[in-house]
Amino acid sequence: MEIGYKSSDKYYSKDENGNWKFCEEKDIRRIVGDNKTSMKLSAMIDIGRIDLDQIKPKKESVLDMIRVACYVHQIDKAIQYAEYCMDKGYESTINLMAVSKINERDLDEALNDVAKSQVAIFYLVDSFGSLYQEHIERLVRKYKAAMPEKTIGIHTHNNMQLAFANTITAIIEGCNMLDATFLGIGRGAGNCPMELLIAFLKNPKYRLLPVLDAIQNHVLPLQKHIDWGYHIPYLITGSMNEHPKAAMEWMESENKYDFVTFLKKMHDKELLE
Amino acid sequence: MEIGYKSSDKYYSKDENGNWKFCEEKDIRRIVGDNKTSMKLSAMIDIGRIDLDQIKPKKESVLDMIRVACYVHQIDKAIQYAEYCMDKGYESTINLMAVSKINERDLDEALNDVAKSQVAIFYLVDSFGSLYQEHIERLVRKYKAAMPEKTIGIHTHNNMQLAFANTITAIIEGCNMLDATFLGIGRGAGNCPMELLIAFLKNPKYRLLPVLDAIQNHVLPLQKHIDWGYHIPYLITGSMNEHPKAAMEWMESENKYDFVTFLKKMHDKELLE
Repeated sequence: MEIGYKSSDKYYSKDENGNWKFCEEKDIRRIVGDNKTSMKLSAMIDIGRIDLDQIKPKKESVLDMIRVACYVHQIDKAIQYAEYCMDKGYESTINLMAVSKINERDLDEALNDVAKSQVAIFYLVDSFGSLYQEHIERLVRKYKAAMPEKTIGIHTHNNMQLAFANTITAIIEGCNMLDATFLGIGRGAGNCPMELLIAFLKNPKYRLLPVLDAIQNHVLPLQKHIDWGYHIPYLITGSMNEHPKAAMEWMESENKYDFVTFLKKMHDKELLE
Repeated sequence: MEIGYKSSDKYYSKDENGNWKFCEEKDIRRIVGDNKTSMKLSAMIDIGRIDLDQIKPKKESVLDMIRVACYVHQIDKAIQYAEYCMDKGYESTINLMAVSKINERDLDEALNDVAKSQVAIFYLVDSFGSLYQEHIERLVRKYKAAMPEKTIGIHTHNNMQLAFANTITAIIEGCNMLDATFLGIGRGAGNCPMELLIAFLKNPKYRLLPVLDAIQNHVLPLQKHIDWGYHIPYLITGSMNEHPKAAMEWMESENKYDFVTFLKKMHDKELLE
């Protein structure tokens, strides 16, 4: 379970962001104690948003895994960060973001660099929720061909109601680290819904009932305060292969249901760029 | 556009059902006049719910197409109905429902019967929203192999957030009549959302803007009164390959958000059967 994001208070305000932007050891332990369960815990870090000396040796932490998010031009740094975490005793992953914007040559070079690294897990990330199944199929095949020894993960967004479908496609192509959240809760249109994935896998290791219990008692009530999930503005940015930022702002505005104006605005923006 | 369902008032009460359960000529014309647009209109009929003499010759109707829904044991009747409509001057389709419950031998026989008929269009219908992309792929290939000269249509339900993904899979496999509704409005979890399909097709014949205009002004306001779309009870019936009836009743009850009890109830039901 990814319990949060880890960064330094040099880069983000503690007042404006909650504890889970920083994932300090004392806060994690407040929730999980020494984590005597079989569930591994992870946190995500970004390049240039954390000083590496803040990552303690694994034996001093309940975290098991550090996931390193990066853009393609940061891939060398990401490898350095991820290998640093491995040296400290953690599992680590590299999550290459915004792949739908990367040209083929840059992507090939990045994959080649990761292939030569010690990092054992590499993630396909559909940051904008803009990928269709045929893209996922092509990219997983490409990732696996470039690094046949490594584990490939998949992280999807639901802008076009394809987060679950794309995760299935990734499974069929051989991905076996699958990101999902209860009721798909996540930024903007959200992510792959865990309950769909559990029902699909029909794996006796995973039970649907406790997932539904947690959803009805803990996640569903959040819908009164947070409006994640499929909404037309997210479809618009996703289908245009754009960051959901503009859609998220639109959804916070009084005009959230004026989809026509948002579509025009996005097209004008595209024409101006 | 399917404007409604056509049946006889011998079989359904006029008081309990609206005009669109009967699609009488005078009611359709009240909306579309003589339909001077290029959009064709269709209505759906069921075996044994309409007397065929109620289907007037095409030249007396603004309807262009009659779609015949049937279960596999009704396939001979469906062919008879569809050919009757063609003789009257309409286009017609056969929509074979609940394919996820049909055994392979019965399905092969039904496809063979349709293949030999005059009916030009045959629909793959995921009545329970229980099919994954791999099922859609296999079934479209089977349908096309059995009747290479005919047009294959696809009609999906969104129980597992796969209505759009399954429609894309069907397109890739050669389906070219695609059912979709604004904002996915439809029974239970609803159908393939039109806006996603239009954005995907990127066909200059189809424009997203007027679709969004209709959605925000006419369909979105209906969400205050009708609760279609993805909800956990629909996932439960879909993933169990069951008719959504029980989930629809649950969604109408006071316990609609008690997913755990509904899951237990459905499992008990399955054990009892």
